[in-house]
Amino acid sequence: MNVTVWNEYRHEKNNEEVTKIYPDGIHQVLASALTEHGYDVKTATLDEPEHGLTEEVLNNTDVLLWWGHVAHDEVDDAIVEKVQKRVWEGMGLVVLHSAHFSKIFKTLMGTGCDLKWREAQEKERLWVVDPSHPIAEGIGEYIELEEEEMYGEHFDIPAPDELVFLSWFEGGEVFRSGATFKRGNGKIFYFRPGHETHPTYYNKQIQKVIANGVKWAAPTTREYPVYGNAKPLEKLEGYKED
Amino acid sequence: MNVTVWNEYRHEKNNEEVTKIYPDGIHQVLASALTEHGYDVKTATLDEPEHGLTEEVLNNTDVLLWWGHVAHDEVDDAIVEKVQKRVWEGMGLVVLHSAHFSKIFKTLMGTGCDLKWREAQEKERLWVVDPSHPIAEGIGEYIELEEEEMYGEHFDIPAPDELVFLSWFEGGEVFRSGATFKRGNGKIFYFRPGHETHPTYYNKQIQKVIANGVKWAAPTTREYPVYGNAKPLEKLEGYKED
Amino acid sequence: MNVTVWNEYRHEKNNEEVTKIYPDGIHQVLASALTEHGYDVKTATLDEPEHGLTEEVLNNTDVLLWWGHVAHDEVDDAIVEKVQKRVWEGMGLVVLHSAHFSKIFKTLMGTGCDLKWREAQEKERLWVVDPSHPIAEGIGEYIELEEEEMYGEHFDIPAPDELVFLSWFEGGEVFRSGATFKRGNGKIFYFRPGHETHPTYYNKQIQKVIANGVKWAAPTTREYPVYGNAKPLEKLEGYKED
Amino acid sequence: MNVTVWNEYRHEKNNEEVTKIYPDGIHQVLASALTEHGYDVKTATLDEPEHGLTEEVLNNTDVLLWWGHVAHDEVDDAIVEKVQKRVWEGMGLVVLHSAHFSKIFKTLMGTGCDLKWREAQEKERLWVVDPSHPIAEGIGEYIELEEEEMYGEHFDIPAPDELVFLSWFEGGEVFRSGATFKRGNGKIFYFRPGHETHPTYYNKQIQKVIANGVKWAAPTTREYPVYGNAKPLEKLEGYKED
Repeated sequence: MNVTVWNEYRHEKNNEEVTKIYPDGIHQVLASALTEHGYDVKTATLDEPEHGLTEEVLNNTDVLLWWGHVAHDEVDDAIVEKVQKRVWEGMGLVVLHSAHFSKIFKTLMGTGCDLKWREAQEKERLWVVDPSHPIAEGIGEYIELEEEEMYGEHFDIPAPDELVFLSWFEGGEVFRSGATFKRGNGKIFYFRPGHETHPTYYNKQIQKVIANGVKWAAPTTREYPVYGNAKPLEKLEGYKED
Repeated sequence: MNVTVWNEYRHEKNNEEVTKIYPDGIHQVLASALTEHGYDVKTATLDEPEHGLTEEVLNNTDVLLWWGHVAHDEVDDAIVEKVQKRVWEGMGLVVLHSAHFSKIFKTLMGTGCDLKWREAQEKERLWVVDPSHPIAEGIGEYIELEEEEMYGEHFDIPAPDELVFLSWFEGGEVFRSGATFKRGNGKIFYFRPGHETHPTYYNKQIQKVIANGVKWAAPTTREYPVYGNAKPLEKLEGYKED
Repeated sequence: MNVTVWNEYRHEKNNEEVTKIYPDGIHQVLASALTEHGYDVKTATLDEPEHGLTEEVLNNTDVLLWWGHVAHDEVDDAIVEKVQKRVWEGMGLVVLHSAHFSKIFKTLMGTGCDLKWREAQEKERLWVVDPSHPIAEGIGEYIELEEEEMYGEHFDIPAPDELVFLSWFEGGEVFRSGATFKRGNGKIFYFRPGHETHPTYYNKQIQKVIANGVKWAAPTTREYPVYGNAKPLEKLEGYKED
Repeated sequence: MNVTVWNEYRHEKNNEEVTKIYPDGIHQVLASALTEHGYDVKTATLDEPEHGLTEEVLNNTDVLLWWGHVAHDEVDDAIVEKVQKRVWEGMGLVVLHSAHFSKIFKTLMGTGCDLKWREAQEKERLWVVDPSHPIAEGIGEYIELEEEEMYGEHFDIPAPDELVFLSWFEGGEVFRSGATFKRGNGKIFYFRPGHETHPTYYNKQIQKVIANGVKWAAPTTREYPVYGNAKPLEKLEGYKED
């Protein structure tokens, strides 16, 4: 399975605090983790030509991961459209943390995708609420992150097809932090944690969830559906072929 | 409750066959039916200034109905954006028949909304599959339409929140023909029947379903959610106000 | 609309602490609140003949509320079966707090309905996560209860049709605390709060949610579906009537 | 993965027409097909001691298939309870055709599971409506069965978590013929086709769907959730350990 990790890759270059945690970028940490889980992983970043997402790259990607934050607006609409087309065709998409506000996620959801947030080094506890979901494979009752950014409800998304994780935050909020959606022939997994100032993506359980999400989001092998004008499958008196 | 029926209103002016069935436009037939069901109904059409959907009209609309077909592209993107904003704020939206391909529906769904179709005067039978849904109030096991356009699966929408009707077609297809969705604070009901060359919107049961859909889609009265940076609700050591 | 509030009514008679809070029983407080909201309300309790749920009572009940805790096992299986039949026929059911373990709820869910719990006078905050749901009508972003029993995930229910409230608890847990289901022709709303040692049912917002739940769960007026052997609706060569 | 195919195995012994099609029983045809798909398959039938479902068999079963029709009532309630317990623990369950009325399916659904039916050698066409679902892997737009028993809506089940197939029947009905549910830690797939008087289970596409269903229903490896009284995870003033 071919996985592409896309990262905005700005904080890591511009913010010392982030550089210390992710010297080679969030994408490299995710890529290493997914490689360990047995995937064939490539990376792509905003400042590459076509954001690293050429048609060839997209056509050879089974599951795409997306991390973005400060530069959502710099992502070219034409690329967003290509990614959307690929999701509709079957490519899986794993949307991480602040990518809730990415153009691609908002476009696929049809909602504003807004939420409450706070940076206060507070504790997050992600509870599994769908115990038989393959994305929860190997995960205990909850994952505890000592310090994370808070995201709180209302999270302005459509009702998820499946709700896998619910987060508890020290400051009093809750959040639907692991949620699945389908659009066209593609599967989408949104997973909340991963603020750039915390070493969240080094956490083995978080890596396991993301690896599970990639596996779950793998394309289903089928012919693309046929749309448009259709001949009847049964005898139909009123039917005349054009 | 204030209802606005929006109609493209082109076929009725350009196609004699349609003019005979809907001399004053599909919107007028729907408006009469909804008035009989007790709603305060206005209409709006594509060729009016701002398509009849000024900010005042939209702000005073609790539920908007949408019928379009040949001129989806002529709908101004700025108006689509305003309608979307109003749905997100709580306005109900009832999307009829060929409006599956309207800009507003596609934008709210995040999918291509494509389907199979055929004009062959064939029989459609809409089966109720969610018997306790208020949209099925007063409706028998099924509604039979002697002649309708066929829409067939795969219908490229997200999995509906609720599936109320399933259609059987004489030519061999099925279709998820009554489906609900929520986006932001607004409720959306898609209802399949109503091709312009058939007198479907005079059918009392079809009118009843649409009236039920309007009632179901009525806004819920609440404050709009607060998004953005949030102070903790509990004591939090790591928190410093900016 | 005819509402029946069913209560086990044991704690209120046997536990002084509870007697002080609910001297006439939880059912009377709920009945008063629902009467104020415009419903025609009756009550029924475990120790009445047939638990107060005679066929006449059940047949005249549009929505039944259920509160039970220590005496689930004393509820006669024959009565449970009658209630289930009525739900399948269309009667709404509002299941409160510890009634998660009632025979009727477990039977309708098909799961164990177990959960984590703790009595520690801790704070509960119920967040609205489905802002357009009629059950959230008139409710702010969250409801805060200074002291309640904790219920924590995993809550062993099927994935709800709709998730309206999520609870945050001071001790570190979350809970799907407002959830809807449909069974047969009936609608079911589970609502978490209401431990007998806390005055939760006097809280005006909690009363409002329960009143909204009753309204939402009201029966849809339709003929009961026809099941069993069915003649074809279309000409079928292979068909011979028996 | 260990699969057990359970079959009532009565029609095949008592009805010549069925014997000709399934001389060794439906279970043997299913077992062969699943073996070809790479599973380790065993069979069990009603008339074996404990219906072939001893605790050892159940404990070593990852996914159980269930076919029954005329003898649902002969299935021992104690065995049903054991199967339910295993599903709650994580065992997958694939429920076939007339097993919609099996004790185990009705118990897990919480509904009557009734439907319309007709034996008239009519055509069934199963349309894929969830194109990215792994159960649809390798399946075309639809599967056509020249002759099958008809099952028609309303099918009295809870709203499925996912709807994969919709059936069209020649006589005018539709049916939700491929549907998934979760109960406890177990996954359930209901798949409609397979009347005993038709050679449906020899159909390669039907076999593929069932094999896909088995794969999808495989247990997720996690610790069983902890229920009951729970110590707080955060400091809680009101908490005293018992």
